[in-house]
Amino acid sequence: MSQLVNTRIADLGKPRVIIIGGGFGGIEVAKKLKGFKAQTVLFDKFNHHCFQPLLYQVATSGLESSSIVFPFRKRFSAQKDFYFRLAEVTHINPAERSIETSIGSVTYDYLVIANGAATNFYGMKDVEEHSMPMKTIIDSIKLRNTIIRNFETALLTDDAELRNSLMDFVIVGGGPTGVELAGALSELKNHVFPKDYPELELSQMDIHLVEATPRLLNGMSDKAGNTALQYLQNMGVKVHLNCAVKSYDGYAVVFNTGEKLITRTLIWAAGVKGQPVAGLSAESFGRAQRIKVDEFNRVKGYENIFAIGDAAIMEGDTGFPSGHPQMAQPAIQQGKLVAENIKRLISKKEMKAFRYKDLGSMATVGRNRAVADLKALKLKGFIAWLIWMFIHLVSIIGFKNKFFVLISWFMSYFSYDKSNRLLIARPKDGVQ
Amino acid sequence: MSQLVNTRIADLGKPRVIIIGGGFGGIEVAKKLKGFKAQTVLFDKFNHHCFQPLLYQVATSGLESSSIVFPFRKRFSAQKDFYFRLAEVTHINPAERSIETSIGSVTYDYLVIANGAATNFYGMKDVEEHSMPMKTIIDSIKLRNTIIRNFETALLTDDAELRNSLMDFVIVGGGPTGVELAGALSELKNHVFPKDYPELELSQMDIHLVEATPRLLNGMSDKAGNTALQYLQNMGVKVHLNCAVKSYDGYAVVFNTGEKLITRTLIWAAGVKGQPVAGLSAESFGRAQRIKVDEFNRVKGYENIFAIGDAAIMEGDTGFPSGHPQMAQPAIQQGKLVAENIKRLISKKEMKAFRYKDLGSMATVGRNRAVADLKALKLKGFIAWLIWMFIHLVSIIGFKNKFFVLISWFMSYFSYDKSNRLLIARPKDGVQ
Repeated sequence: MSQLVNTRIADLGKPRVIIIGGGFGGIEVAKKLKGFKAQTVLFDKFNHHCFQPLLYQVATSGLESSSIVFPFRKRFSAQKDFYFRLAEVTHINPAERSIETSIGSVTYDYLVIANGAATNFYGMKDVEEHSMPMKTIIDSIKLRNTIIRNFETALLTDDAELRNSLMDFVIVGGGPTGVELAGALSELKNHVFPKDYPELELSQMDIHLVEATPRLLNGMSDKAGNTALQYLQNMGVKVHLNCAVKSYDGYAVVFNTGEKLITRTLIWAAGVKGQPVAGLSAESFGRAQRIKVDEFNRVKGYENIFAIGDAAIMEGDTGFPSGHPQMAQPAIQQGKLVAENIKRLISKKEMKAFRYKDLGSMATVGRNRAVADLKALKLKGFIAWLIWMFIHLVSIIGFKNKFFVLISWFMSYFSYDKSNRLLIARPKDGVQ
Repeated sequence: MSQLVNTRIADLGKPRVIIIGGGFGGIEVAKKLKGFKAQTVLFDKFNHHCFQPLLYQVATSGLESSSIVFPFRKRFSAQKDFYFRLAEVTHINPAERSIETSIGSVTYDYLVIANGAATNFYGMKDVEEHSMPMKTIIDSIKLRNTIIRNFETALLTDDAELRNSLMDFVIVGGGPTGVELAGALSELKNHVFPKDYPELELSQMDIHLVEATPRLLNGMSDKAGNTALQYLQNMGVKVHLNCAVKSYDGYAVVFNTGEKLITRTLIWAAGVKGQPVAGLSAESFGRAQRIKVDEFNRVKGYENIFAIGDAAIMEGDTGFPSGHPQMAQPAIQQGKLVAENIKRLISKKEMKAFRYKDLGSMATVGRNRAVADLKALKLKGFIAWLIWMFIHLVSIIGFKNKFFVLISWFMSYFSYDKSNRLLIARPKDGVQ
């Protein structure tokens, strides 16, 4: 059938801006091009934007998957000259100003690479094969299904080691995802699973959070890291600092400290790397396969190719020698400016250089417990938790999604419940 | 691993009632056994109850999947002596009063078979292989994904026949599921897809509803059937009466009338049949593999095995010579009485015979358009549509689900939108 299909992107006789990836950065570029005399084409492998910061709540049954994703076509249905294509971009041909995709090739005038980051297993094939990443909505649904299937299976055995392997969770990576996931799992342990599984001794459920450096939340202040550590320990999470995974066979995790844990569920939130599209010169790539860009987010050596967000690493005096933090804000801010600069280039004006405006960062550990670094202000506890919720709510795309997330949080707060503990998958028997 | 797990259902020294299947009938039995001196064990292949009447709204992006399912453990967490097992029941041994399951075997004092119905392809292997059934939450998510993927692919081709095959839908079966699905698809065609797919000529999207008998909604009054037909035709659905599928190869559907349609999506809502569990005598099965039961829903020949709902066909003078309608109400009413009769048996009282109380039936075709047969009263239009919504809302399990469904409907009503048009699946390229 493939010979019958092609990208079929109409030639509007206007400059064509192709955006690869509809994450925070990519949709910002598309939004800001609204009303401008250009054709905007968004390529993504999914038909929806995903609000990644809340994936961990889908994985732990707090939110339904549909509340944190939003169809691109719905978001941009009112935007003239916007085109969406559900496809994978496989190759960039800078010389011909074209890209090759799973549905054919197409030319561009300006290309914005905003394809985010993939999980970095640092070359450990066994870990990659057996652990669960947390980058896509599918990852989060799979993890939710796994947690529930593990518990359904744990109550079927008299074998203590087997039961423990199903009830114990090891989360690798003490960044926001790891910290938030550990907190949410401990809420399941303390408030939800005792009611669901009276046949199990919930004190046997161990939640391990493993971090290779001496502290949690490395992107945040020492105070935030220490507070998060304290919160997690108070909630019963076993935090292992200065501890890195050496191997995992789906059952035993071995650490560089010599310690060993038994678990069927290793959640890998320990690092990300770029997802290079073939065709750029080898010198374009920097640390962790991020694409080196100048102060205009322009890929080095190409005048009409930009890279933003997690995919990019800006050189020069940015204040972030190893790249801007791989969070929503840098991607959004760079997306906004790249759209502006593309307009400027088309209008023969000078481009503006990027300057990151740090709006702060935050992480939530559980009900009433969060940490927030806002400029000089370091907050923790209930206030930080309220701010965290507010910021996330206003950032989620779509009124219905905001409303459903708000209601879900409101109900969870008073009931201590997480109501989406659904195993939506073809029935599978026993230990998967 | 399987030797290490077994059903591990504690012996409470009380009569054990095992229920196979947590649909409308099964959960009713479990609910009514609350507080009684019996152990209730529910087996299901899923960990949640599914509100099947709204599956078609999930398939057509109107509702998120999580709004119409509800975890069994959450529903019964407060019920003493209730046990849930996520497993498939594979064999019944009436002589030993035991069942075999995917997680081991267990004995029962009373067994209630409430495993519902499966799709009946009437022996047509090609149809079974290529068409899409609409019985489970997974079926509905798959159909939603397919509809969206079809449209994403349709706009990539210049080949008119290929495009048509992707944009045309054939629904087989003019019962409530077929009628409601046809109506919802036509709403997508008329209100949603023109905005999402400006590159496609939506007039090319054909929705065919095929019914083998001379009328729609056979379980309802002539008036209801005619009204539904008129509604659908006004909405642009092509209804084919007296028309049955002879073959389907995934591309061409051939009918007994000689007519042929090209479609990649044949939705099969044409019939159901029982899902026999091995071990009962061959004489236990009646029409369409439903289990023959007496007026107490007791399986013929077995004193302590009951069958209810879609799975059962009651003999004798029920007023329904080919079995009670395979809808929620007979299942619920039979479930209630079977629980009552099991209590009576245990308390050495006489059982009560089942009498079906027909509360009426209804089907919705689209906004403001429904038909409802309520005893002598035959309603249509806006009033019928309001009643349909009200009845469904009160029947959905869980406050949050009711609330989310209500809000979704409310927003769709005013926006003419269906907001869950999500393709949540591993990326796939081109025509699937």
